[in-house]
Amino acid sequence: MGPGRRAGRSTSRNDILEAARARFARHGYVGTTVRAVAVDARVDAALVHYFFGTKTSLFAAAMALPVNPADVLAGVLTDGVEDLGERLARAFLRIWDDPAAGAPLVGLVRSAASHDEAATMLREFAGQEMLARLAGALDDPRAELRATLVGAQLLGVAMGRYVLRIEPLASANHDTLASALAPTLQRYLTGELSPRDA
Amino acid sequence: MGPGRRAGRSTSRNDILEAARARFARHGYVGTTVRAVAVDARVDAALVHYFFGTKTSLFAAAMALPVNPADVLAGVLTDGVEDLGERLARAFLRIWDDPAAGAPLVGLVRSAASHDEAATMLREFAGQEMLARLAGALDDPRAELRATLVGAQLLGVAMGRYVLRIEPLASANHDTLASALAPTLQRYLTGELSPRDA
Repeated sequence: MGPGRRAGRSTSRNDILEAARARFARHGYVGTTVRAVAVDARVDAALVHYFFGTKTSLFAAAMALPVNPADVLAGVLTDGVEDLGERLARAFLRIWDDPAAGAPLVGLVRSAASHDEAATMLREFAGQEMLARLAGALDDPRAELRATLVGAQLLGVAMGRYVLRIEPLASANHDTLASALAPTLQRYLTGELSPRDA
Repeated sequence: MGPGRRAGRSTSRNDILEAARARFARHGYVGTTVRAVAVDARVDAALVHYFFGTKTSLFAAAMALPVNPADVLAGVLTDGVEDLGERLARAFLRIWDDPAAGAPLVGLVRSAASHDEAATMLREFAGQEMLARLAGALDDPRAELRATLVGAQLLGVAMGRYVLRIEPLASANHDTLASALAPTLQRYLTGELSPRDA
């Protein structure tokens, strides 16, 4: 592969990422297809799949996330619901505490909080790729509510620790925080949601 | 009191609120004094106190909040730490579910998420007037961490339910949500934070 070929490859890749960012912002996560991104970027849809795989991975790449949160969640879910709260808390903190992933995630939450289009995009991505998968792992009539309670707790840590940087939450160590959060997440996932459940 | 007098009163009041908003934004909550706001508004500091009372109340008025969150918290704290999680969850949901208070609160969180100055202002107000008071009510070496964990859980509900409007969290009813949140808040306040506490 000569230098010309490499430059072309990198240009297509960047064109796709730029087209994806614009489309996710304008049409939301649900309303965006890999095919439409390919048309916008003037490349074949197969090339988008070749570079980025699924729509979820394309979204992660477009948001400059070094890991795909949906893949991380899928990995955490393979081991079942026992101790899932602990594994979720640790995976969440590991990603957010890593500066390479934390910075773009903070950017994502900040823009979702302030722009309606970004809010729609994040709500749809989180809803379809994270919360629906999490709910799908639970055998419970209130699985969706349980998943959003987990989401709300983690979103609050994201806001308090990484966006607003409220102390001592912002500098609490990983283990302290994971231990504090794990029972909360586990109860939301599989425990009693209200005294009437008892 | 004639119409002229009334107009003057209303002008002073608005001048004070505008000066307060500008100062809180520029200098943060901690760096703003009632005296400095009075100077900016070209009124006597006594008039600011007469209209708005304390700095906390001036902040609430400047942010267009129909209730002062610090007063609500003080009311909740008078009944001690037993069932405090439940009372906090209910007071929080009552305020945020009320459109008159909820809309300006959503505005406050949205601007704090996207602007550094607003983030500093909210962090300082929440830290000094909410979290420090909450921590002060707890007899525990990790009282500050406990208070920020409560704050993170509530901030997450604020973001998920009211800012991003993620379903079914956004339309879950008050009782369901209060029951789900109460044990979390109570454990953060007075329970075991980690298995090692057991």
